Amino acid sequence: MHILVTGAAGMIGRKLVARLVKDGQLNGDAIERLTLTDVVATEKPTDFSGPTKTSTSDLSSPGAAAKAVAEKPDVIFHLAGVVSGEAEIDFEKGYRVNLDGTRALLEAIRAADYKPKVVFTSSIAVYGAPFSSSIADDFHLTPLTSYGTQKAISELLLADYTRRGFLDGVGIRLPTVCVRPGKPNKAASGFFSGIIREPLAGQEALLPVADSVRHTHASPRAAVGFLIHAAGLTRAQLGPRINLAMPGVSCTVGEQVEALRRVAGDKVAARIRREPDELVQHIVAGWAERLHATRARDLGFKAETAFDDIIRAHIEDELGGKIVA
Amino acid sequence: MHILVTGAAGMIGRKLVARLVKDGQLNGDAIERLTLTDVVATEKPTDFSGPTKTSTSDLSSPGAAAKAVAEKPDVIFHLAGVVSGEAEIDFEKGYRVNLDGTRALLEAIRAADYKPKVVFTSSIAVYGAPFSSSIADDFHLTPLTSYGTQKAISELLLADYTRRGFLDGVGIRLPTVCVRPGKPNKAASGFFSGIIREPLAGQEALLPVADSVRHTHASPRAAVGFLIHAAGLTRAQLGPRINLAMPGVSCTVGEQVEALRRVAGDKVAARIRREPDELVQHIVAGWAERLHATRARDLGFKAETAFDDIIRAHIEDELGGKIVA
Repeated sequence: MHILVTGAAGMIGRKLVARLVKDGQLNGDAIERLTLTDVVATEKPTDFSGPTKTSTSDLSSPGAAAKAVAEKPDVIFHLAGVVSGEAEIDFEKGYRVNLDGTRALLEAIRAADYKPKVVFTSSIAVYGAPFSSSIADDFHLTPLTSYGTQKAISELLLADYTRRGFLDGVGIRLPTVCVRPGKPNKAASGFFSGIIREPLAGQEALLPVADSVRHTHASPRAAVGFLIHAAGLTRAQLGPRINLAMPGVSCTVGEQVEALRRVAGDKVAARIRREPDELVQHIVAGWAERLHATRARDLGFKAETAFDDIIRAHIEDELGGKIVA
Repeated sequence: MHILVTGAAGMIGRKLVARLVKDGQLNGDAIERLTLTDVVATEKPTDFSGPTKTSTSDLSSPGAAAKAVAEKPDVIFHLAGVVSGEAEIDFEKGYRVNLDGTRALLEAIRAADYKPKVVFTSSIAVYGAPFSSSIADDFHLTPLTSYGTQKAISELLLADYTRRGFLDGVGIRLPTVCVRPGKPNKAASGFFSGIIREPLAGQEALLPVADSVRHTHASPRAAVGFLIHAAGLTRAQLGPRINLAMPGVSCTVGEQVEALRRVAGDKVAARIRREPDELVQHIVAGWAERLHATRARDLGFKAETAFDDIIRAHIEDELGGKIVA
């Protein structure tokens, strides 16, 4: 089996590749080849024995998408994209990368005339307020960011290309991935991770929104699990509605802080400093608080059940079990 | 006031222009200039005293959209597009005209750096089965045709361009416009009109689906009314959710036939011949049967209340009151 990962140098991309290499197989088929693309340089996994091709390219550039699928990868994980904050600040870049890049990939597959599995990472940013207290699977998409718009459009394209038989697509709407390791990125949701990650590393973290803000989270480990699971779903299981809201832990910022206190103690939790930021507040206010994700749960997607578990996953996977008390 | 109509040579386009010319004003402002574009030649209205510019161009062609908005029309009715059957048969043409053409228009407006009112004709083809018995305004869009996909994507773009302040958009999801005058077009919904229009004109009509098929209809007169009404809605009235399902008459094909019998007699109704067509049946089976259209009704959009009225509107507007008995 030959697997292509776009956005392979990103946080989820790197974790997905590591998991694929560790598993050595996907849905029971041995992984024989990897193609990894990103706009920045991608490292080759050291412990994979098969041929690995890496390329530094933007899918929206002429020819880049055709090159990415030239050797007809069986499964494509399409993760490439600019994040919400950046797509909001740079209108043209957001549409170029997130819409034109995705469309170029789908068109390249159509031109290559074969039918790969395409797993697309969408986002709960496809939803836009006002909401009822919980969002059902058949709730409409009225995004309030350009990023969410680009993801919603990509979902529609993926569904139509699937319906027409050009590919076998599945879109998964990731909740906020938390705790993100490493440096903050430009996502407006970054603080949800920052208020856990920084205190655990002995550093102060800024909290730009009220403690009452509710949001849905899944760990990077769970997000990678969603991608792997999505790749194994059949067309018959998915039916015509191939874009799915993923499950997650719905909790308030205050509950996040309390979970941090339970897992790591008062001293760690005290490193969170409240500093309201109107732009972030405004963006976050338009996001979904809670999703049923009934179809995804029925199809076997699994997330954590408590925010404490999300913190523990971070401590295990990123901190070697150690926190700065 | 300067008004641009794209798709001005189409059935709705011609009727809209005739209505605008007859009214002489839109939302209380005198209409001073008209710009009319279409891919085929557009006739200048004979009874309009102001300057009228017509152009034969495809908005997706380089420079065409910029030219269409070069003189900064205050209100743009964007009706141009290829119909459902054609977009399904010619994948590339559908995406080029319906998606790239719309995006080119929005981009041209953004580049022109002003903020016109943009009224976009979407379609209930944005919905896709399975449905509950009636579709609420917050039901999700899962189109089952490329045409519906292109309309749903255009709605998302229109909403984002509106949110970003580049224009002031409103999308109206037209139910099936019935009775369409003139020759059949390539829309899969064409028979809904054909089974009324042809018998009234003394000709046989083919009915490709079962009498039990339910669908929602509005007359061409009502559709033009929707467009005019939409142009008068303010940003405050619309809020962030600018794309609206329009009201209509929900009835079965059997009820259409009975209405024809009531309005025009048994002899006329007997001119309908049942000839099942699997492709049409398949496409129609994926369409919405009935819509709440609660928001649209609350915002003052008005449709007919019975199919008999739709038939009478056709006899008045197209047949000079005369039917071939």
